[in-house]
Amino acid sequence: MVHAGVMSGSGNLMDFLDEPFPDVGTYEDFHTIDWLREKSRDTDRHRKITSKSKESIWEFIKSLLDAWSGWVVMLLIGLLAGTLAGVIDLAVDWMTDLKEGVCLSAFWYSHEQCCWTSNETTFEDRDKCPLWQKWSELLVNQSEGASAYILNYLMYILWALLFAFLAVSLVRVFAPYACGSGIPEIKTILSGFIIRGYLGKWTLLIKTVTLVLVVSSGLSLGKEGPLVHVACCCGNFFSSLFSKYSKNEGKRREVLSAAAAAGVSVAFGAPIGGVLFSLEEVSYYFPLKTLWRSFFAALVAAFTLRSINPFGNSRLVLFYVEYHTPWRRKTTKLGKYPVLEVIAVTAITAIVAYPNPYTRRSTSELISELFNDCGALESSQLCDYINDPNMTRPVDDIPDRPAGVGVYTAMWQLALALIFKIVITIFTFGMKIPSGLFIPSMAVGAMAGRMVGIGVEQLAYHHHDWIIFRNWCRPGADCVTPGLYAMVGAAACLGGVTRMTVSLVVIMFELTGGLEYIVPLMAAAVTSKWVADAFGKEGIYEAHIHLNGYPFLDVKDEFTHRTLATDVMRPRRGEPPLSVLTQDSMTVEDVETLIKETDYNGFPVVVSRDSERLIGFAQRRELILAIKNARQRQEGIVSDSVMYFTEEPPELPANSPHPLKLRRVLNLSPFTVTDHTPMETVVDIFRKLGLRQCLVTRSGRLLGIITKKDVLRHMAQMANQDPESIMFN
Amino acid sequence: MVHAGVMSGSGNLMDFLDEPFPDVGTYEDFHTIDWLREKSRDTDRHRKITSKSKESIWEFIKSLLDAWSGWVVMLLIGLLAGTLAGVIDLAVDWMTDLKEGVCLSAFWYSHEQCCWTSNETTFEDRDKCPLWQKWSELLVNQSEGASAYILNYLMYILWALLFAFLAVSLVRVFAPYACGSGIPEIKTILSGFIIRGYLGKWTLLIKTVTLVLVVSSGLSLGKEGPLVHVACCCGNFFSSLFSKYSKNEGKRREVLSAAAAAGVSVAFGAPIGGVLFSLEEVSYYFPLKTLWRSFFAALVAAFTLRSINPFGNSRLVLFYVEYHTPWRRKTTKLGKYPVLEVIAVTAITAIVAYPNPYTRRSTSELISELFNDCGALESSQLCDYINDPNMTRPVDDIPDRPAGVGVYTAMWQLALALIFKIVITIFTFGMKIPSGLFIPSMAVGAMAGRMVGIGVEQLAYHHHDWIIFRNWCRPGADCVTPGLYAMVGAAACLGGVTRMTVSLVVIMFELTGGLEYIVPLMAAAVTSKWVADAFGKEGIYEAHIHLNGYPFLDVKDEFTHRTLATDVMRPRRGEPPLSVLTQDSMTVEDVETLIKETDYNGFPVVVSRDSERLIGFAQRRELILAIKNARQRQEGIVSDSVMYFTEEPPELPANSPHPLKLRRVLNLSPFTVTDHTPMETVVDIFRKLGLRQCLVTRSGRLLGIITKKDVLRHMAQMANQDPESIMFN
Repeated sequence: MVHAGVMSGSGNLMDFLDEPFPDVGTYEDFHTIDWLREKSRDTDRHRKITSKSKESIWEFIKSLLDAWSGWVVMLLIGLLAGTLAGVIDLAVDWMTDLKEGVCLSAFWYSHEQCCWTSNETTFEDRDKCPLWQKWSELLVNQSEGASAYILNYLMYILWALLFAFLAVSLVRVFAPYACGSGIPEIKTILSGFIIRGYLGKWTLLIKTVTLVLVVSSGLSLGKEGPLVHVACCCGNFFSSLFSKYSKNEGKRREVLSAAAAAGVSVAFGAPIGGVLFSLEEVSYYFPLKTLWRSFFAALVAAFTLRSINPFGNSRLVLFYVEYHTPWRRKTTKLGKYPVLEVIAVTAITAIVAYPNPYTRRSTSELISELFNDCGALESSQLCDYINDPNMTRPVDDIPDRPAGVGVYTAMWQLALALIFKIVITIFTFGMKIPSGLFIPSMAVGAMAGRMVGIGVEQLAYHHHDWIIFRNWCRPGADCVTPGLYAMVGAAACLGGVTRMTVSLVVIMFELTGGLEYIVPLMAAAVTSKWVADAFGKEGIYEAHIHLNGYPFLDVKDEFTHRTLATDVMRPRRGEPPLSVLTQDSMTVEDVETLIKETDYNGFPVVVSRDSERLIGFAQRRELILAIKNARQRQEGIVSDSVMYFTEEPPELPANSPHPLKLRRVLNLSPFTVTDHTPMETVVDIFRKLGLRQCLVTRSGRLLGIITKKDVLRHMAQMANQDPESIMFN
Repeated sequence: MVHAGVMSGSGNLMDFLDEPFPDVGTYEDFHTIDWLREKSRDTDRHRKITSKSKESIWEFIKSLLDAWSGWVVMLLIGLLAGTLAGVIDLAVDWMTDLKEGVCLSAFWYSHEQCCWTSNETTFEDRDKCPLWQKWSELLVNQSEGASAYILNYLMYILWALLFAFLAVSLVRVFAPYACGSGIPEIKTILSGFIIRGYLGKWTLLIKTVTLVLVVSSGLSLGKEGPLVHVACCCGNFFSSLFSKYSKNEGKRREVLSAAAAAGVSVAFGAPIGGVLFSLEEVSYYFPLKTLWRSFFAALVAAFTLRSINPFGNSRLVLFYVEYHTPWRRKTTKLGKYPVLEVIAVTAITAIVAYPNPYTRRSTSELISELFNDCGALESSQLCDYINDPNMTRPVDDIPDRPAGVGVYTAMWQLALALIFKIVITIFTFGMKIPSGLFIPSMAVGAMAGRMVGIGVEQLAYHHHDWIIFRNWCRPGADCVTPGLYAMVGAAACLGGVTRMTVSLVVIMFELTGGLEYIVPLMAAAVTSKWVADAFGKEGIYEAHIHLNGYPFLDVKDEFTHRTLATDVMRPRRGEPPLSVLTQDSMTVEDVETLIKETDYNGFPVVVSRDSERLIGFAQRRELILAIKNARQRQEGIVSDSVMYFTEEPPELPANSPHPLKLRRVLNLSPFTVTDHTPMETVVDIFRKLGLRQCLVTRSGRLLGIITKKDVLRHMAQMANQDPESIMFN
């Protein structure tokens, strides 16, 4: 008998999964998806295709196409993300140079392209060519002197303001979701939250265009975080083309995880770092299959970018990076006037940045220079050392030398730039424009690192008899490399902000090609993580997610409190009893009243109010649709009709109206835990299985319900009660 | 009332976790651990330490030490694993050379060390120095000629046989678990299986010693897989020193995951590759905390190895790698005589390998040579090209040239070596000695790749007007690099055997330093995975695990069948009903009989046999201990005593013996699913939560039980029924 019941149950499960009503299986905006259910829907779809594939060759080919559609989507994402990143790079190059001058032969050439195509350029004078004219040369025909300087300065500020104004207006009018880096939101979406339009086509378009504008305007931000958002928009777009992904929120998130990897891959030119970043920082559910596909998408994206971008040949040129700042102003007075705020910050940035050579150039160029070692041919101010005239100078092995005037000038300019960069980044971040914090963080770290490096180098040169230098730093040897200090500083600063470890190191050495420096980089990553964790466990993304109050159940937090399911479940003591449905005694009207009076996502179904024995769970949305459908199409269904969830209709008095069978909307396998289950286990279950809610029973009797929000609220409460306990994990 | 019950329940949970009986909480050999329970025990221990830490400064320091013990264990593992790997490298160098000759100045010097310390050596003659004597020189004072060749040949075979005999005898007598690579077993252990002694001190010692012997004997195997086993033994040893890890099987596995990363780190000199390998291939439960710690352990291990091993400066020298072969002979006639088998295979290997220069040298040297490009100074036979006498030869940019006699000789020697290597590896793998398949797989791939590379190069040289060559291969250009073909071939072959993707690429470029070749390497990894998956989804580890019948629930397998929990649970139809305990009506004798007559790991506890309402689950082991304890220590407990699991004793007739309260061994939060739950969800739950068993209920009534073995059996059944369905995932 048991078995027979089970079989018919299975039949009804099939009905249920066939989606008899329109819209069953979709979720509302700002709601959480049910991972287990999405997964089982996909398995069902897959099973149907497999069984059909034996029927005809056409169906077999269709099943093959379906099986390969995952790889096809990855290919498309890789191609589009790579193309967009390449176009953004080219446009930024041109518009950044437009602030200083214009190319006479073709106005759409950047400074470098302009002089490359010119025949009159020699290698030494590659920065100066007649075809490239600064604004002062073009407008007043002067290239030197105070008035030329002031005119160039003004044009620089004007262009910056124009770009920033365009960007903030576009974001404000067309796509408010395009602001920020988008990583915290993507993290939340990947964890199963629905934010409609966040990854839409408008966001894609506007974010791409405004990203070019804000990076070109010279604000203290990078383009890498937003590129991840752009790539995820591409992923969302392509997954909407395949029903396998468009109709299943769980499968769609697998595609989005891979798209995030492709985004980092093109942002840094680091395909492996991208995969690891998606795994370590962004993704929630990351099965090995997604790992392989991410890998493929990242590869295609990097390859596409490299084919498009002519400047992508040197690794350091791919140095545009950006993220989130740790200081987020949630409410400022200026924040109410986003356009004014952007204009003000841009004006200050442009005015202060122009006079200092280390802030005027683009941040990626700055980082590149700070990382570079002083070779014999290096003409940078940072490499102005006093050479020993008696010494023969091999090209590669230059010993430590005393610093010259240029280095000292560079030192105080760097110090000023460092202070400015820290302050302005705080104000830039959080404005209503696409912005990231990766590049500014790295720049801050690299500046500090380079300064420390030069300091140590000079100490070692002048005091090589000190104990710390004596053993490894003989006079005339090259024992301190300030460029390496800058690289390690950048890694440490970035690690402190984002708490990345493995992906950080991989990205750093994919960026710089410096596989030899893996040990100092790893040491920097581990140390910065330790130090930063001592101040607080949250990285920048988690902090942002908490500030915005998204329902995100972090896999990194450990819950170590001694509460039980019974302490968290609702109803609490004194609260009215749980709203439940009975399996065969409520009328349509009763249920409609219950739905109207409450706003729960669903209702447990019990045998009767007395026994309280749980038989299943019905979703609010599906109940409403089923009743509406039945009222319209089924004859004899009135407000007094009895609703039943059992196999057989209940025995009713002779003159009662036709009953309504609702077994197909009943989930017969709701997740239950006992009231004695430790909350630690409950948190684990919610996290690993991606549940929306869980029912609490004792000896088979329904006691209450725990939703994802209850869990999050409880975790926040416990953390506030005893903040110390987190530290010791 | 509900709440009061809960509170007292919580109190009892505490009693339970206080481990009132000795040995409660440990597992028997060849049993599976309960991850959820281990986790909650650790949380409890941690909570106790945290609350105590507020009592005194001493307790506070103890709590800090406890919090840092994880990093300390990682440091120790890294140091020991790095040291062992360094010692093994040095010993292998010496013993490999011992087969050819001996150093007169100090017999413990390898050939290279011997000639380095000698003053008479010049760079050109660095392989020949008077202090290093071949056996023929030493014994009959001849260095050339047929008799010298034969004597050297014989000595080579003799030493090889001696090493192999010693190794197989040591393994046989002292540590049978030391054979093979150990990775499949480690994978199984990490998934929660108990194999006592597999990671013990004897295994550590014997595996280290025999690894040196077998690698030196010249058998077609590598040392990398066994090094992972050695590192895990180190991890197990150090975790036994800290009660946090020694008393908790779940926490211990976190340490072992990190130790595996350290093992790969020293095996390949690839710390990041090691972390990824542990993540992608070996580990089961890999939280982000373990990722960071693995990273640290891998870093320390790589650093230690580099400090010890003087030859570790060049990346390619760290090229000793090994793994599992895809062809495993489960039963051969020779297999019954392990010592004879090893001797026979060693003899054949030595006899066939000596005459061919590509098999005589160590496999890692071979791979290194195959990967190398032909620079101007290269003297290898593979680089014997015909140079154009009119051409000026820059050092780095040599155009494609026609092949000389040496290259053609090398080609057929390589072809013979390739066939020999494939055949002998099949026979070597699976012998009762430590052995891995990484290096042999790479060698096979590298040989095939180099041969294809030379073929394409010559084609391109002679037919540069062909369409495929025309666009990118002008006459006089260097357009084909055979060394790169070898590298890609090695990656592809290894990828096909192990199905690694991301970790493979990272290891390859950490090994070779060739960050530029990331795109061809990634393409090779993805292609080899696709091709190999078309033949069968299982990598070498999974195949091995299945052959050995370990209860391993692979995270990569997807279960897509439409069965329900009710189809898998026991009892089946027609079987006797489930053995259950009642909450307050069975006597001690009843329970003892039940325990004697069954061999289940535990028993569900129900309210009564009529209602069948589930209240909890009691472990067999804990029941036995509790009854034994009570009979010895508690007065009035006799066979007729009633056992009760409730809070309050049941009402008994006046003259009945003293009842026995057993609530503390009752798990009040057993895991339940309903009978309608799809098996897909059940598999997911077992996998993600690491359960041992799960109870099946309907409307609160207990119907049956599903254990991990039931799940595995069912998955195997379904896969056999419909093998095709797996392909379309």
